[in-house]
Amino acid sequence: MNKEVESVREELIFKFGYLTNKIGLSKSMGQLYAALYFSKKPISLDELGVICRMSKGNASINIRRLEKWGAVKRVWVKENRKDHYEANREIMSFVINHSAEIFSGFLQEGNGLLDEVKIKMDSLEKKDLDAAQKEALVTYKANLRELEGLMKKIAGLMKNIHSLRGLIGI
Amino acid sequence: MNKEVESVREELIFKFGYLTNKIGLSKSMGQLYAALYFSKKPISLDELGVICRMSKGNASINIRRLEKWGAVKRVWVKENRKDHYEANREIMSFVINHSAEIFSGFLQEGNGLLDEVKIKMDSLEKKDLDAAQKEALVTYKANLRELEGLMKKIAGLMKNIHSLRGLIGI
Repeated sequence: MNKEVESVREELIFKFGYLTNKIGLSKSMGQLYAALYFSKKPISLDELGVICRMSKGNASINIRRLEKWGAVKRVWVKENRKDHYEANREIMSFVINHSAEIFSGFLQEGNGLLDEVKIKMDSLEKKDLDAAQKEALVTYKANLRELEGLMKKIAGLMKNIHSLRGLIGI
Repeated sequence: MNKEVESVREELIFKFGYLTNKIGLSKSMGQLYAALYFSKKPISLDELGVICRMSKGNASINIRRLEKWGAVKRVWVKENRKDHYEANREIMSFVINHSAEIFSGFLQEGNGLLDEVKIKMDSLEKKDLDAAQKEALVTYKANLRELEGLMKKIAGLMKNIHSLRGLIGI
């Protein structure tokens, strides 16, 4: 490839890596994804390592993370035994899927944790408490209910996020 | 306060910190916010340090971060010279505001970076390139335009996020 054309690809890849790193994602994942996104055909892991100037080990770890996200997929290239990859170009789809997955795991764990506190609160209510203690407990319970209401709304939203996408046009 | 009632508050605070840490936010910020969220009245920085079992320095740094997010605000307490804080209970509001701020900064930087590459592409187009080089360049440009289109849609969405909130019910 022409050196200058190649340098354009390099800039795209490294700037993409810089930007994904900026929002707290892995630079390597950003670079690998960009290499595939800007390519017309699937690329093997070996080639990806060369293009993104990273070790095969690093390329392999991060391509598997991208696969788990649904951001890239392994494809079959005729007469070639090596693993090749291509980008899932539906960026919003996999970002939303992955975020929804993380969020629902988080919600589940959060509910489990809060259930323990609620059991404790219920047993405390049956005890002899003075007015101030009772008031504190009532406040905690009310605030917790408010918080849980918000969590439920967000969980519902996450479930319907794909139908919402049409509504909001992304 | 009754020891058991106090221990409920403690559990709420520390579990909240654990959960915010889980999603990549600061544990201290989560604890401080929870301490204020579950309190009926404003709390001074000194008290917050005691309740959340953190140094005054740590409490002070993290309460200022929360203030910057719009998650807590400093309030005036009669006949008390110390800074007091209370929680902004509109969680979705400040989460969205803060995310939109970070995202628009990210978009601005991204656009700047991509403009450099586009200038390079334009000057390359005027040069003598063979068919394969031309095709590569056309692919990069088309993909970049696709990406920019998505970014613009998200930016537009971010601008209208508050009116969207009514639509999606959060």
